[in-house]
Amino acid sequence: MLQIIRDTIESIKPISPLRLKSAQAHLDSLTKPPGSLGLLEELAKKYTAIRDTDNPCIKKKSVVVFAADHGVTEEGVSAYPAEVTPQMVQNFLNGGAAINVLSRQQNAEVLVVDIGVNHRFDKHPDLLDRKIAFGTRNMTKEPAMTRAEAEESITIGIQMATQLADNGVDLLATGEMGIGNTTASSAIFSVLGNLSVSEVTGRGTGIDDKTLNKKISVIQQALEKHNPDPDDPIDILAKVGGYEIGGIMGLLLGAAARNIPVVIDGLISSAGASLAIKLNPSVKDYIFPSHRSVEPGQEVFFDLIELPPLFDLKMRLGEGTGAVLAFGLIEAAVKIYSEMATFQSAGISERAET
Amino acid sequence: MLQIIRDTIESIKPISPLRLKSAQAHLDSLTKPPGSLGLLEELAKKYTAIRDTDNPCIKKKSVVVFAADHGVTEEGVSAYPAEVTPQMVQNFLNGGAAINVLSRQQNAEVLVVDIGVNHRFDKHPDLLDRKIAFGTRNMTKEPAMTRAEAEESITIGIQMATQLADNGVDLLATGEMGIGNTTASSAIFSVLGNLSVSEVTGRGTGIDDKTLNKKISVIQQALEKHNPDPDDPIDILAKVGGYEIGGIMGLLLGAAARNIPVVIDGLISSAGASLAIKLNPSVKDYIFPSHRSVEPGQEVFFDLIELPPLFDLKMRLGEGTGAVLAFGLIEAAVKIYSEMATFQSAGISERAET
Repeated sequence: MLQIIRDTIESIKPISPLRLKSAQAHLDSLTKPPGSLGLLEELAKKYTAIRDTDNPCIKKKSVVVFAADHGVTEEGVSAYPAEVTPQMVQNFLNGGAAINVLSRQQNAEVLVVDIGVNHRFDKHPDLLDRKIAFGTRNMTKEPAMTRAEAEESITIGIQMATQLADNGVDLLATGEMGIGNTTASSAIFSVLGNLSVSEVTGRGTGIDDKTLNKKISVIQQALEKHNPDPDDPIDILAKVGGYEIGGIMGLLLGAAARNIPVVIDGLISSAGASLAIKLNPSVKDYIFPSHRSVEPGQEVFFDLIELPPLFDLKMRLGEGTGAVLAFGLIEAAVKIYSEMATFQSAGISERAET
Repeated sequence: MLQIIRDTIESIKPISPLRLKSAQAHLDSLTKPPGSLGLLEELAKKYTAIRDTDNPCIKKKSVVVFAADHGVTEEGVSAYPAEVTPQMVQNFLNGGAAINVLSRQQNAEVLVVDIGVNHRFDKHPDLLDRKIAFGTRNMTKEPAMTRAEAEESITIGIQMATQLADNGVDLLATGEMGIGNTTASSAIFSVLGNLSVSEVTGRGTGIDDKTLNKKISVIQQALEKHNPDPDDPIDILAKVGGYEIGGIMGLLLGAAARNIPVVIDGLISSAGASLAIKLNPSVKDYIFPSHRSVEPGQEVFFDLIELPPLFDLKMRLGEGTGAVLAFGLIEAAVKIYSEMATFQSAGISERAET
């Protein structure tokens, strides 16, 4: 394993139980019945513990959108042609996609990373060129990538997180674009959850029954051919994953190592997060789930972490859209923590002893 | 029935199915797989249809917090003393409560209405004095209010909505404060849902088992004594309701009559909304649920409307906190509708015909 990946994994420590406890004590002093803000209180506690501070404040927010293509699309597993990946990257750069709209609302920066799109882009000030290859290979025929490429994709994610931490980011979200990447993610969840392919495979961008059956058999074929080691996340990534999934893994490792909380979007981000958690279980201390997507494979991820999803909005778009929506809830939680009056300061009667 | 109430009820019309259909067509032209933004698309469609416009835009948002006291608190049904109602009103005016924090985040105005608090407040520029009485009467002994008082509380809500509509509000939320008001709301839901009191009664601000049993028997006693007519929402309000619940009913009627969407908070707001829907079922076309509270009675409300709650955050604070959190999602939906690129404008390939 590359030294940077090994060092990053080793530097991730669990968050402090003492910090969680003192945050709860502060929340209980605020002018509301104890616990009455439910999950918002859990979000505030976790954010405070990750940042290891008494004075949490969210100023700088970014969503990192990793874009890559997938060789497996030549098997006909998606409702859209592969050329949509670079077209959507262009849409991100033009500010016209859903992730742009939602990020503007949340005052968050959108960082678009070409980590493996099958297209030669013109230079653009907002496009980060970290291309590993022009898409992965067709996993039904050969491993999606080499182990060296898998480690390269993780390294790119770590470096992104480090750079963002150096620039003072307070909250991150994962995003992605890549026609074919629900196929890769379902393959990953089948291995990680030890579940049949049909249990973890959904309709992605909206395929019909016939294409769904094709997608399931394509994944089965790839898993039988390569037999990824369930205890080796990098092996899984290399054989059936995608460059953007490796980027997400690395982003989470790098962010956790620098005490930066990360909000996880839908299926593909959850696949990257699950692989990162397998590399170091303490990663889950640093991540927030956002929404429950309609894709069934994501349940494997929810089993791995401790907070339930914040929304169940039947979304299945990706890009980071669900994660950026959750920025609003996490900021609400942090503002509750830092701005509410206490019973004492407001002169309000406490509850009767019972 | 007062003429203003009758006229308002009669002026509420269902939203246009044509408008919903044309809004869906626009959403399907945007650069995302059709339907992939799930409930956000439903929110955008409904908002657009309520406002009856092709160019939805949310600029002015307000939450109306109706505060009132409840005579039934002398039976010992709450974890907090009744004096907390005026103390919390003061906290709202000082900007220190959860509703203030969340409204600042959402750039929404907080309007505090004294519709029946058991306290004589000093004049305050941000406190609207619409006091009907110094709290309702103890429903175990006599009806909570007279029918005239019930109609007065509804009228106050209608007038608030009319004034806000005149001032150009684009989106409203319901809020309330009143120690004892989960007792009134559970009583209302028992009647409306034809359910046993124990099925619809929860722990409010956090009462223990003994107080919960007391609360259930107090509600049973009141319902047996007064036998509210399930087909007469004003009778239910008068016998076991509260002034703030009448205010919420009126706000919804007045808002629906003026094409203003309203977001419904937790148990108490849901009780007011359910009574308003019983006065005119078209009211449900104009309201958005926000969160599923931990109070069981709220399920009666969800059965009455057609959209599921947007959050399940285990909240039970009231004040309008859950509704104001939902402002963020509704604004996100409206911005998606109005700001995203179309497939055509972005030059992106459409899905393959299957």
